[in-house]
Amino acid sequence: MTDLSTMAALRAACEDLPGPDDRAAAAVRARQAVLTKPPGSLGRLEDLVAWLAAWQQRPALDRVSILVFAGNHGVTARGVSPYPAAVTAQMVGNFSAGGAAINQLASLAGASLHVVPLHLDRPTADFTEAPAMDTAGFLDAVRTGHDAVRPGTDLLCLGEMGIGNTAAAAAMAAALQGGDAAGWVGRGTGIDDAGLLRKRGVVEAGLARHRGSLGDPLQVARCLGGFELAALLGATLAARRAGIPVLLDGFVCTAAVAPLVHLRADGLDHAQLAHVSAEAGHRALAAALGLTPLLDLGLRLGEASGAALAVPLLRAAVACHAGMASFNEAGVADRA
Amino acid sequence: MTDLSTMAALRAACEDLPGPDDRAAAAVRARQAVLTKPPGSLGRLEDLVAWLAAWQQRPALDRVSILVFAGNHGVTARGVSPYPAAVTAQMVGNFSAGGAAINQLASLAGASLHVVPLHLDRPTADFTEAPAMDTAGFLDAVRTGHDAVRPGTDLLCLGEMGIGNTAAAAAMAAALQGGDAAGWVGRGTGIDDAGLLRKRGVVEAGLARHRGSLGDPLQVARCLGGFELAALLGATLAARRAGIPVLLDGFVCTAAVAPLVHLRADGLDHAQLAHVSAEAGHRALAAALGLTPLLDLGLRLGEASGAALAVPLLRAAVACHAGMASFNEAGVADRA
Repeated sequence: MTDLSTMAALRAACEDLPGPDDRAAAAVRARQAVLTKPPGSLGRLEDLVAWLAAWQQRPALDRVSILVFAGNHGVTARGVSPYPAAVTAQMVGNFSAGGAAINQLASLAGASLHVVPLHLDRPTADFTEAPAMDTAGFLDAVRTGHDAVRPGTDLLCLGEMGIGNTAAAAAMAAALQGGDAAGWVGRGTGIDDAGLLRKRGVVEAGLARHRGSLGDPLQVARCLGGFELAALLGATLAARRAGIPVLLDGFVCTAAVAPLVHLRADGLDHAQLAHVSAEAGHRALAAALGLTPLLDLGLRLGEASGAALAVPLLRAAVACHAGMASFNEAGVADRA
Repeated sequence: MTDLSTMAALRAACEDLPGPDDRAAAAVRARQAVLTKPPGSLGRLEDLVAWLAAWQQRPALDRVSILVFAGNHGVTARGVSPYPAAVTAQMVGNFSAGGAAINQLASLAGASLHVVPLHLDRPTADFTEAPAMDTAGFLDAVRTGHDAVRPGTDLLCLGEMGIGNTAAAAAMAAALQGGDAAGWVGRGTGIDDAGLLRKRGVVEAGLARHRGSLGDPLQVARCLGGFELAALLGATLAARRAGIPVLLDGFVCTAAVAPLVHLRADGLDHAQLAHVSAEAGHRALAAALGLTPLLDLGLRLGEASGAALAVPLLRAAVACHAGMASFNEAGVADRA
């Protein structure tokens, strides 16, 4: 059991992390060197198998799980999204009914889908006026995410749903990475020019309001984030401690787990960034965190859609590793 | 029946191409606008469905076919590859036995795999000394590729195997696109520094030898290409004329079909570039031809491996399009 009962306990858990199994990764590399292909010619697919093995001991994708956390945000009252906040709960209903993009993508990926709404009838506070969450509410959301991760999972895909949450993500990215706040703010679900200006003002006001707390990455998450972002942090932490590799989705997901890197430089080594989204700040945030996306297809939907889309790449990597013949087995001449 | 009996007939076939079905694409766009997602938020997945529909009438991926053409090259005698030419036939054996990367990837992609060796015991001529193929041999290889495409295919993935063929591809790219010949020459399966210098010299010698013929894109293919490259051109042409969308693989595949763009600017509009490979010239060649890769994962294997790897992206795009609920169906509020 990981103690997440206080901010200090959570910080300690984020700092006390298991490392990779270098021997398992080396065994993968050794097998790859004798398979019927020029060395390294499967590119990043080869790296992915070694990475899976480093965290799982053996590369396997029998139990792939998708977790989508949903939350609502007080800042939506300030007009930061073209959609009403009610859409968060309506989309959770759509997930249950099987009508969303992630339902189709989860099915194709051979993954289970579990959606976790975090009291959608009780949004976070408007972060321009108060911390988004009090300490108890923040820790409770982190624990919800942590406890949603099932032991025995081979790969965890993470995503979110929450009208207004790209404003929270932009505020967290600005607080953690610095730079011009406006540069982290994008159009989210597609806000117009006037809305974009409003959204930038809201993010700047949030940063000004909490200036005194933003030296602590976990306070950044509490003051500027949201319930679903806190849950994503908790789930990513739980996965690391259980040896479960993680596929991160888009901008909100990346911002939500960025504190883990600020608390410990290798805090996301068990995670891959599934894709870089079209949301304005994502490419820069990924680069700042040392994450190289697997896909770059202009998605900006959330819901773990990009993460699910990358699962077949991992399946391909593992299938090649497991199924290919060696030069000896196939009677193919190796290099002269 | 397409007449491919003479160079003039082949040229005429390459210039007389059907266009896209804009109404089918527009119908896809209209449905996408009402699905439960912000407009455009599935990024390139939305474009891919419209593209499939534009060539197939309806977006479907029931019959996905992978064709891999194999050939041998006279220039291998000049030390342009670290592998002996015998490996081409040995790898064809490995394909038959199911031990190659493409076997694993085809299975995961739900695609049939058909490997077409083009008289491997009779390599093309060394293009530094003579045209790689005489006219009859070139047209015969084009026809082999053309006739390998089965009507009723929903998506055709193309790839190749041929020790030495990145030298042929580099020579074709240099002849068609211009620029410093050395800039198109890469390490292929992994040649060392001395071999890379040799390979550059071979490509430069080939270009010098055939200078007088290189104004005609089809003569470029005949003089500098190879049997498997000619077959790729024939298959891509056949697919266009049969309304079959194509996924192109790596550098060799792209160079092989580049003449189609030089003969007619929209000659590859029915094709997507599945990935950009790590081979030196591929990114520049793709850009020159207006092809934006779907994947960028450092692969450089050939065998249609990158094309097969991209099939799940198309399946995901079609599944979202077919399976998602509309805002009305799901009771989700659209934008305010």
